[in-house]
Amino acid sequence: MTENSTPFFALETTAEAGNARAGIVRTAHGDIRTPIFMPVGTQGTVKALQQRELVELDAQIILGNTYHLYLRPGEQILSELGGLHRFMNWDRPILTDSGGFQVFSLQELRKLSEKGVEFASHIDGSRHMFTPESVVDTQRCIGSDIMMVLDECTPHPSTHEYVRDSMRRSARWAQRCMDRFKETEERYGARQFLFAIGQGGVYEDLRRENMHALVDMDFPGYAIGGLSVGEETGDMYAMTAASTAVMPADKPRYLMGVGTPENLLECIDLGVDMFDCVMPTRNARNGQLFTTQGPLNLRNAKHKMSDEAIDPVVDSYASNNFSRAYMRHLFKANEILALQLATHHNIAFYLWLMRTARTKILAGQYRQWKNEFLAGYRAEKPSA
Amino acid sequence: MTENSTPFFALETTAEAGNARAGIVRTAHGDIRTPIFMPVGTQGTVKALQQRELVELDAQIILGNTYHLYLRPGEQILSELGGLHRFMNWDRPILTDSGGFQVFSLQELRKLSEKGVEFASHIDGSRHMFTPESVVDTQRCIGSDIMMVLDECTPHPSTHEYVRDSMRRSARWAQRCMDRFKETEERYGARQFLFAIGQGGVYEDLRRENMHALVDMDFPGYAIGGLSVGEETGDMYAMTAASTAVMPADKPRYLMGVGTPENLLECIDLGVDMFDCVMPTRNARNGQLFTTQGPLNLRNAKHKMSDEAIDPVVDSYASNNFSRAYMRHLFKANEILALQLATHHNIAFYLWLMRTARTKILAGQYRQWKNEFLAGYRAEKPSA
Repeated sequence: MTENSTPFFALETTAEAGNARAGIVRTAHGDIRTPIFMPVGTQGTVKALQQRELVELDAQIILGNTYHLYLRPGEQILSELGGLHRFMNWDRPILTDSGGFQVFSLQELRKLSEKGVEFASHIDGSRHMFTPESVVDTQRCIGSDIMMVLDECTPHPSTHEYVRDSMRRSARWAQRCMDRFKETEERYGARQFLFAIGQGGVYEDLRRENMHALVDMDFPGYAIGGLSVGEETGDMYAMTAASTAVMPADKPRYLMGVGTPENLLECIDLGVDMFDCVMPTRNARNGQLFTTQGPLNLRNAKHKMSDEAIDPVVDSYASNNFSRAYMRHLFKANEILALQLATHHNIAFYLWLMRTARTKILAGQYRQWKNEFLAGYRAEKPSA
Repeated sequence: MTENSTPFFALETTAEAGNARAGIVRTAHGDIRTPIFMPVGTQGTVKALQQRELVELDAQIILGNTYHLYLRPGEQILSELGGLHRFMNWDRPILTDSGGFQVFSLQELRKLSEKGVEFASHIDGSRHMFTPESVVDTQRCIGSDIMMVLDECTPHPSTHEYVRDSMRRSARWAQRCMDRFKETEERYGARQFLFAIGQGGVYEDLRRENMHALVDMDFPGYAIGGLSVGEETGDMYAMTAASTAVMPADKPRYLMGVGTPENLLECIDLGVDMFDCVMPTRNARNGQLFTTQGPLNLRNAKHKMSDEAIDPVVDSYASNNFSRAYMRHLFKANEILALQLATHHNIAFYLWLMRTARTKILAGQYRQWKNEFLAGYRAEKPSA
């Protein structure tokens, strides 16, 4: 990598109480103001949202999934049509995972070795192999601004020995990814960055050992992986704290696959900058909305006659313009608009939450605001 | 009905060649410039489109289906929440059918008498009855700007005798609807209008007889029903021509459930002002797009690598901003965004077609433009 005069990450402030941080990640497709939530756009679309709605809601970066994009549309089409940004008509930053998480979720369908992981496509059963080198190549072809290394996301529960051996192999893979990254160049004229991923299950000693090893390799950013896979919430927070304690202050910190609004606020307090999760989009499609007053389920009969808006605090088209009764009707009638509006609101809420958190960090009021917000969010309510 | 100084319908111009007309239908929720296509919003939503997108595409009026709205959300919720306009947050005009078309489509599930038609709900099998009086009451509760009378849409083929007896009963029902309409008032402060529907199958003598009978009842607008149900296209045009020949020039003419872009242009030429059809929305969800160069099917392999936009002539978000390759990918991957963008484009196309037709009528160039447009639309192409 060539040196740039502008640093990739600029830390703006750190909270006085706790470890919350505000910063800026600078990419060829624009700046990302942290803390940030990244909506998940698995197959080149954030399900049920138009790209212009993501801009309207000020999503500063979205995710793509390498496993899915590799299988469909595939590298040939992505390459021919100028990479994922151009293919999906999205000119803001994109982060892609390495595909490892999905491949390791396939269970029966994969075979793991030092070389990499062999798997069968969930679409047509065809056999493929991901190696540390190949996932870098695929992400070069996708053209994501932030690429992730191949790693094994160890299942929960796993023994200390299994997690140790797995994470040490993942660290060797991280170095191979870094080597391949340095040997190759971006395809579409936009500089790319490669992040490492810390593993270690629910074992603090392993989390520390692994993160130290990765920090020595000098990546421009670090992720915490292997959490939100069934462990206790307390363990998730403890592992996050153990990881951020080792992560360099001058590089962005990304907690993968987390989580609820409460999880995000607590992990910001532990020093995390970036989050992604399918929860706001997936739960929206099941009729669960996140609001400033806590979650609500639109299928609940109490909303039948409710003229109340979804959430007057969050300023978005879906949050303010439709009654809960109408939203419930759309879900009961299996209308596509139900999925569109519910997703629009939930992403609006998650992004509002992160913007507000950032404002409060910059104002030196994060811990106080977090406590007040969560008190209202968690308050006992008649069945929502 | 009280007399207004502004007439409900103003005829602006009639083409020199053919019978194409431009006019304005004036309702409490705004003016409708004809000829017009009305997107179908069966259950209080035009499937896969946000209400603000309908405004963006300049849909001047949409349809609701009384059968569906009566069953779900039902009259109690609609009434409690201030009618359909407020329920779905749509402040432009709405036309509702009477529910008859859907009930008569249920086949096994209904029982017809002079009084009305009994049927079983497709949702839970519960028994209900629609009468000429009840469908007026239901449409008063919905609050549609334009209501339709209850009629039997005779199946194709049907004998002359069957069609004659059915349409005479429908005419008696039309009078009962008119009587009920005059005895009742609007519920939400916005004046409503009731249209009659001509039947007569593919028999010109019956079409003429029936329309004459309805014209004598002095409705503010007239529809042509019972077409696009399996008859030859030539018969559809002949029945439309036989009907418009009898329909008063100073009242709007609505051809129900028609049709393809070609059907619309030909029937405008026969003197029709208003159209509705599920074709642009339903076909969009199956991957068929209507374009100025003819229909194209996104599932076709030829679009696999195509960087071409859907239709550069039609100015809409979906028409211009996404490649056919991307659209095809979304359909192959079963993504909701496929349905959203395809529907957005098809409605944009249908509304563009009607706006252009209107401009050409006003400029005295309709027949010439229609022939030129259809030559390009129908031209032989490599499999689309």
